[in-house]
Amino acid sequence: MPRYTAIVTLLAIALYFFFATRVAVAHGKFGVKLPATTGNLDFERVFRAHENTLEWMPTFLVPLWLCAIYLSDIAAAALGLLWIVGRVVYFVGYSKAVEKRLPGFFIQSTACMLLFVGAAAGIVMVMRSAGS
Amino acid sequence: MPRYTAIVTLLAIALYFFFATRVAVAHGKFGVKLPATTGNLDFERVFRAHENTLEWMPTFLVPLWLCAIYLSDIAAAALGLLWIVGRVVYFVGYSKAVEKRLPGFFIQSTACMLLFVGAAAGIVMVMRSAGS
Amino acid sequence: MPRYTAIVTLLAIALYFFFATRVAVAHGKFGVKLPATTGNLDFERVFRAHENTLEWMPTFLVPLWLCAIYLSDIAAAALGLLWIVGRVVYFVGYSKAVEKRLPGFFIQSTACMLLFVGAAAGIVMVMRSAGS
Repeated sequence: MPRYTAIVTLLAIALYFFFATRVAVAHGKFGVKLPATTGNLDFERVFRAHENTLEWMPTFLVPLWLCAIYLSDIAAAALGLLWIVGRVVYFVGYSKAVEKRLPGFFIQSTACMLLFVGAAAGIVMVMRSAGS
Repeated sequence: MPRYTAIVTLLAIALYFFFATRVAVAHGKFGVKLPATTGNLDFERVFRAHENTLEWMPTFLVPLWLCAIYLSDIAAAALGLLWIVGRVVYFVGYSKAVEKRLPGFFIQSTACMLLFVGAAAGIVMVMRSAGS
Repeated sequence: MPRYTAIVTLLAIALYFFFATRVAVAHGKFGVKLPATTGNLDFERVFRAHENTLEWMPTFLVPLWLCAIYLSDIAAAALGLLWIVGRVVYFVGYSKAVEKRLPGFFIQSTACMLLFVGAAAGIVMVMRSAGS
């Protein structure tokens, strides 16, 4: 099984968990009482930054592991680290202002796109070598 | 590793990513400014159609892969394609009207149910043959 | 492949699906018409209890399977059962009152933390034995 990708995946989950704790802090700081998740724009940006990270989890984790299994553990792990960097930049930026989410967003979406291409290439190569 | 299921999973992720781009377009089209995700019913239906697809990802991806690993790659991939068809019908329908989400919803939930049964059957068979 | 963890994962998905049916019932019971997901606090608590379970899925499923693959199938499955218990307590509690979500929340987060530690320990041990 891919080891480097496993470590990077745990790092990504740790970061994602850390984002969740920031949402909990923001609930208190901006006075948004559960079960509400709206009512204050500063809170909503933190909430949406976490929620968007969740929304991208399938788009990140699935290509990450298919790339690791069918193409290369090291390549998948390296792109996984890039995703983590992009998500940190995104979260810090979005917490400050809506427009500041964009640089990190493009870093993380580029990582996902490359992982997707890598996964697709890996599967095609495995199928070809099995067919020949 | 299951190859056909890997391809179908990538297709499902590509579709899910496409839905996300529709939400981004709807933000602009219906004038719902981030971080808000409410305020216009036409926007909210598109947003909820994407969000519901996310909500079903665990219910889809987990049985899909357990079915592929423990029972049959081909069967899992075929039901995965059915799920994709159901999700397209669901998204197109929900974008138009709340009631129009139902036919697609039942197609995709039927696919998930069959994948779940297939996964459970596969695990039971593997355990039985290991025990005998 | 890990069999006990596979069974526990299917149980977790079945529970998660059951929570989704409770949200559908709550839509009708408390008169919150789709695509809206706010407007009634009793509904919102049920909705958020389901949504929080989704939010924790990556934090649960990833360490669960990494722990099962790199450390121990039985240990991962046992902690997976603990997570399920915690989620039941959480959902029943949160449906009644905001504060009553906490005991179940701590049970499930403890399970996730132990799975994370188990996964990390397992990966480190595999890398060490490969390096020696």
